[in-house]
Amino acid sequence: MLDLCLLGTGGMSPLPKRWLSSLLVRFQGRLMLLDCGEGTQISLKMIGWGFKEISTILLTHLHADHVAGLPGLLLTIGNSGRTDWVTLYGPQGLSRVVDGVRAIAPHLPFPLEWMELTGGDGLTLDGLEVSTLAVDHAVPCLAYALHVPRGRRFNPERARALGLPVALWSRLQAGEAVEWQGRRVQPDEVLGEARKGIKVCYATDTRPTPELPGFVHGADLLVCEGMYGSPDDLPKALGNKHMLFSEAAGIAEAGRVGELWLTHYSPSLTDPEEWLEEATRVFPNTRLGYDRMTTTLTFTDSSE
Amino acid sequence: MLDLCLLGTGGMSPLPKRWLSSLLVRFQGRLMLLDCGEGTQISLKMIGWGFKEISTILLTHLHADHVAGLPGLLLTIGNSGRTDWVTLYGPQGLSRVVDGVRAIAPHLPFPLEWMELTGGDGLTLDGLEVSTLAVDHAVPCLAYALHVPRGRRFNPERARALGLPVALWSRLQAGEAVEWQGRRVQPDEVLGEARKGIKVCYATDTRPTPELPGFVHGADLLVCEGMYGSPDDLPKALGNKHMLFSEAAGIAEAGRVGELWLTHYSPSLTDPEEWLEEATRVFPNTRLGYDRMTTTLTFTDSSE
Repeated sequence: MLDLCLLGTGGMSPLPKRWLSSLLVRFQGRLMLLDCGEGTQISLKMIGWGFKEISTILLTHLHADHVAGLPGLLLTIGNSGRTDWVTLYGPQGLSRVVDGVRAIAPHLPFPLEWMELTGGDGLTLDGLEVSTLAVDHAVPCLAYALHVPRGRRFNPERARALGLPVALWSRLQAGEAVEWQGRRVQPDEVLGEARKGIKVCYATDTRPTPELPGFVHGADLLVCEGMYGSPDDLPKALGNKHMLFSEAAGIAEAGRVGELWLTHYSPSLTDPEEWLEEATRVFPNTRLGYDRMTTTLTFTDSSE
Repeated sequence: MLDLCLLGTGGMSPLPKRWLSSLLVRFQGRLMLLDCGEGTQISLKMIGWGFKEISTILLTHLHADHVAGLPGLLLTIGNSGRTDWVTLYGPQGLSRVVDGVRAIAPHLPFPLEWMELTGGDGLTLDGLEVSTLAVDHAVPCLAYALHVPRGRRFNPERARALGLPVALWSRLQAGEAVEWQGRRVQPDEVLGEARKGIKVCYATDTRPTPELPGFVHGADLLVCEGMYGSPDDLPKALGNKHMLFSEAAGIAEAGRVGELWLTHYSPSLTDPEEWLEEATRVFPNTRLGYDRMTTTLTFTDSSE
């Protein structure tokens, strides 16, 4: 189970009710942020999920509308009583930004570490698999895919038929072979088909790229920028390396995702509703993101 | 005439409806900020006074709750089309923070300059006189007084009696002697008593100091921190170098100011109303600041 909350949905500059980019993910009690624009900590305070369990912050890129919330957020994490590591991940240049953040927030009661990532790098964070893709913006920028793998279904009838004691089941379930009455029992003997896990993707700020549909393929949810709604804004989208609603929907469609949330609207786009059809015509299951829009994703494989 | 808006009234960490410290001042079309906590640009967007005329930012000190809004604000000032200088003033250490801000917001379309001030330093900014006082916090911290001087009243009857042409009046009004029909006319001959200007003071984060009442003396408005309301929080106020409501009121009373606005509340102080009487008992004309509280100050001298 994965809880998500879109803390801010504005690009570049905030509007009074639309703050800057951040997506919060809760998995097994741990909190992870993707981007941290100004106002992130205020939005977090509003939803009340707490600060102390924030262990990981993934940054798409280092423009201020995606990172300027870091000094305040880190201090508030510190004030929440956290003493464990917090780790920042982001593209090339992250060290320089961390230096800047530390100039504004020099005293933190927890160790802060950071790692610069290159597209294609992967991480496993307490059972959550994170993969990255280099995308196409004015500065180095990464899309992220989060994947919660799901174990193969365990077949208790088969295990009983083999006479295996229940004490050995969990090891087989975890994919380990076990010895029982002089015989080596392989996991394949008691496990069924692979099952679909949960996959969430986050892609902002970028032009559509040929790799994006494959990267987001089969995601339950794609959170994707929709900087501009009107097709007339294509020249701006090309010039500023952003997407139209219809382009984000094209990626969702090509990647056969379950649902698309649009985010990172231009401040000039005061009424995203006006252009929603530009997206739904291409990918019907599109929703307009808004600040503090929340969902919970669960395993949905029909073989459950 | 001076317009003021308290953009944020929270100390340390924001609450959902109480953001971090900032006071906006508008004088003759120019905008000046005192402090710039996270969320300042959002609050500014809400009130709609614009960004392009922000020329000056005065910082009391360099804790993140007073400066973390700078990167986003500066970028939004840039996006507003400003190309003129913006100047930051603050205590010792400002250079380091500016480096941090520039790491997060490296590209600005206007020149940014900064100057470190020591208590006692004064500035004159387009007719607005700014003075500073070193106060008592955990790090170097300045209180600010803004003063709009008012010219002495011009006496047109006297000017007419001397036979002075109207074309010469404005020079006399500005304090300049003029030659007329072979005689040197001194301003004193046509100007009345000195008149009270407008004075606003801003003091946060600090313990009360012996110099503060003199520094704020006669201000029309004192905007002062009230980190804690309950007298039981005195040990915290002493330890963290902040004030109780009653202490802020004591400064207002001793300084014979016109009105006191409390600000910079602790996040633990969820209902400042509960403790207002702690202040009004000492200084009746106390008001609880809240985000986007606004006023206009005008010349009030009765000799007008």
